[in-house]
Amino acid sequence: MKVAGVIVEYNPLHNGHLHHIQKTRENTGADVLVAVMSGYFLQRGEPALVSKWLRTKLALLAGIDIVVELPYAFSTQKAEIFASGSVSILGHLGVTDLCFGSEQGEILPFENTITIIDQYGEQYDHQLKKYLKEGYSYPKAHALAFQELKTSNHSLIDLSQPNNILGYHYLKSVKEQALPIKVSTVKRIGAGYHDVHMNNGSIASATSIRKAIFEHGNLEEIYRAVPPFTYQYLKSAFDRNQIYRWDDFYPFLKYRLSIETAESLSSIYEAEEGLENRIIKIMQDSNTFHTFMDKLKTKRYTWTRLQRLCTHMLVNAKKEEMLHALNEKKASYIRLLGMNQNGQAYLNHIKNQCPVPIITRLKKDKDNDPLMSLDMKAAKVYELAAISNQPKNKINNEFMQPPLRYDELNHHFLSDIK
Amino acid sequence: MKVAGVIVEYNPLHNGHLHHIQKTRENTGADVLVAVMSGYFLQRGEPALVSKWLRTKLALLAGIDIVVELPYAFSTQKAEIFASGSVSILGHLGVTDLCFGSEQGEILPFENTITIIDQYGEQYDHQLKKYLKEGYSYPKAHALAFQELKTSNHSLIDLSQPNNILGYHYLKSVKEQALPIKVSTVKRIGAGYHDVHMNNGSIASATSIRKAIFEHGNLEEIYRAVPPFTYQYLKSAFDRNQIYRWDDFYPFLKYRLSIETAESLSSIYEAEEGLENRIIKIMQDSNTFHTFMDKLKTKRYTWTRLQRLCTHMLVNAKKEEMLHALNEKKASYIRLLGMNQNGQAYLNHIKNQCPVPIITRLKKDKDNDPLMSLDMKAAKVYELAAISNQPKNKINNEFMQPPLRYDELNHHFLSDIK
Repeated sequence: MKVAGVIVEYNPLHNGHLHHIQKTRENTGADVLVAVMSGYFLQRGEPALVSKWLRTKLALLAGIDIVVELPYAFSTQKAEIFASGSVSILGHLGVTDLCFGSEQGEILPFENTITIIDQYGEQYDHQLKKYLKEGYSYPKAHALAFQELKTSNHSLIDLSQPNNILGYHYLKSVKEQALPIKVSTVKRIGAGYHDVHMNNGSIASATSIRKAIFEHGNLEEIYRAVPPFTYQYLKSAFDRNQIYRWDDFYPFLKYRLSIETAESLSSIYEAEEGLENRIIKIMQDSNTFHTFMDKLKTKRYTWTRLQRLCTHMLVNAKKEEMLHALNEKKASYIRLLGMNQNGQAYLNHIKNQCPVPIITRLKKDKDNDPLMSLDMKAAKVYELAAISNQPKNKINNEFMQPPLRYDELNHHFLSDIK
Repeated sequence: MKVAGVIVEYNPLHNGHLHHIQKTRENTGADVLVAVMSGYFLQRGEPALVSKWLRTKLALLAGIDIVVELPYAFSTQKAEIFASGSVSILGHLGVTDLCFGSEQGEILPFENTITIIDQYGEQYDHQLKKYLKEGYSYPKAHALAFQELKTSNHSLIDLSQPNNILGYHYLKSVKEQALPIKVSTVKRIGAGYHDVHMNNGSIASATSIRKAIFEHGNLEEIYRAVPPFTYQYLKSAFDRNQIYRWDDFYPFLKYRLSIETAESLSSIYEAEEGLENRIIKIMQDSNTFHTFMDKLKTKRYTWTRLQRLCTHMLVNAKKEEMLHALNEKKASYIRLLGMNQNGQAYLNHIKNQCPVPIITRLKKDKDNDPLMSLDMKAAKVYELAAISNQPKNKINNEFMQPPLRYDELNHHFLSDIK
């Protein structure tokens, strides 16, 4: 039996993602497709555009059989940790194939790159440190150090491309965790990950789609870049004011920074080198999140690095908790967000072999697992912004929501968003 | 030279307050009238209806010569501490007379009461403890214990009346701090402190005035109960959505309780006997502040006691900070909020004798005094709600605002709210 895994954010699910899903099925011949999806806060330190439940719905409609959550402690991290958590979950679920999208599009250069970096490990580390010392950001220093190894005649990947970086770490994690997973890649088409402008084609990056929504204040421009079901559900969320961005959370962050001392904020994950002092100072005079970030960023600290720190401050993700959660480099449980009949049959089939609990519903006041306690805080914070946006509607409550169940034959949700 | 002091909240300033000001001038023959006024958070654990700057403006228009701030550490407290802080400030400013409003209306019964409680101290304490053990709230237990002393033939005060309680503690503080201040009282007319319904007269309690504003969504009903200038400024604040209540701060409190552990909240002032656990639990399912408080209150904990705890949680006022600030039972500085020429002349006259600094403008990043650090946090939190209510207007910034200066002859503000 072939089971393919994909690692996704679907923020929101667009035509490029559909292409990736189709290619993954074709290339792997998978009977079951499992997606590990980030929850409420994403890799670049941003809140998700729409709730994880709605994104799960879109994933099921796009043909994913099982959607599980990548816990907060992994989802808001640099590529290395993000990958190790995601891959561990695919491993737990008995996935046989992993297929990722990349700028590169072929798997051999990824293999070569891992071999080369292994081989020149010492030289690479030395150069990396040198560039960091010179004040370059972490990803930039990596890319520069790597460029200098490119004297070999092997075909290597371009490590300045964000999806190549992720793919590199997926492959590396599979090797490190010694998982029996075959890794392949699909070339991303039509748009770069970081592209902020939409072109006229049917493929656009999620970044440019989000930007178009917030800049134009409507969804017209994104119509051709997303599947019809994405458009329909996003439109409905948009009309009910249930679409989120950092600005919706900024008052809470500002509040927190108004009442806490720099000393107490230094316990937050990624608060290093006195960044917390700088943040408190700049926050005082910044009325919007964008102004704040613009003043905050430097050559040394990328926007993404700083946004992640802000997310950790918002969620109160402490060093101690995060490091405890990350200790094993693997997820200690799997939160099931949604499935169809095919997915359910597969889960029934493997659940006794899964080395960690598969959680279908949360229990209140039971969050001793630091990984889960972080997920709960993230969910509560996300819900709060939802409440402020929606004073009169009761919003979906994390504790009450069972996994979504999609009847793929009759195109009908047997268990829907509450 | 006669200098009379009054201790006020002016939330908002109404006709009863005007009466108190006039009677204070008449009875004391004062040349200068000094008001110690609570800042952004008040004795019953509530945010002020309007900013302290606007309330200062109203005080100056009502004939007060000098308005100074009662620091947060004293303003959000039970009567005993509230009184000791207020009285210490009047002492620092060389006040010769203190005149308070009370249900009682004569000073002798206050004197008698202090003597009696002193005399029967042990018996009183014993009875107090008994009633507390039986589960009565602190004020109720006090009133019950006191009732049993009333066997003497002296005329005593009714200690179940809120303004009598405050007055009792003012007089007691003056004695304890051995201040050369003559204490007198004016009978409150027309409305009880706790009255929630407005009658048809020109006197109504501040409580009923606030209730009328929020219930009716307009200021029509309060017109006859407040001076014309109060009406005019409140109307203008109301039209600009700059009128506040707990609901405006509830999302921030809810946010904080979503990300903190009960253990870390147990460091908050007045978080005792596991109240923090109860608060976190009840908060999760309460969508409005009122629902939340309704579920929270018990026989043992009065609404006021719990509201104060919520305020301390909101402002992050820790036990350590508050106790450090309260150590001396006296204010360590005086924040000047406003004055007229008469007041300014008096301040120039006494400033060299004042034993603590008189602060006219705050310096950023200079809040080593725990009393001031608490005031700064309170101001920042209050401003945040103001920002959410007013996304497009720059709100008055605590750091930028110099004391208001009122030209009482020309009815003109020389230095106004920025």
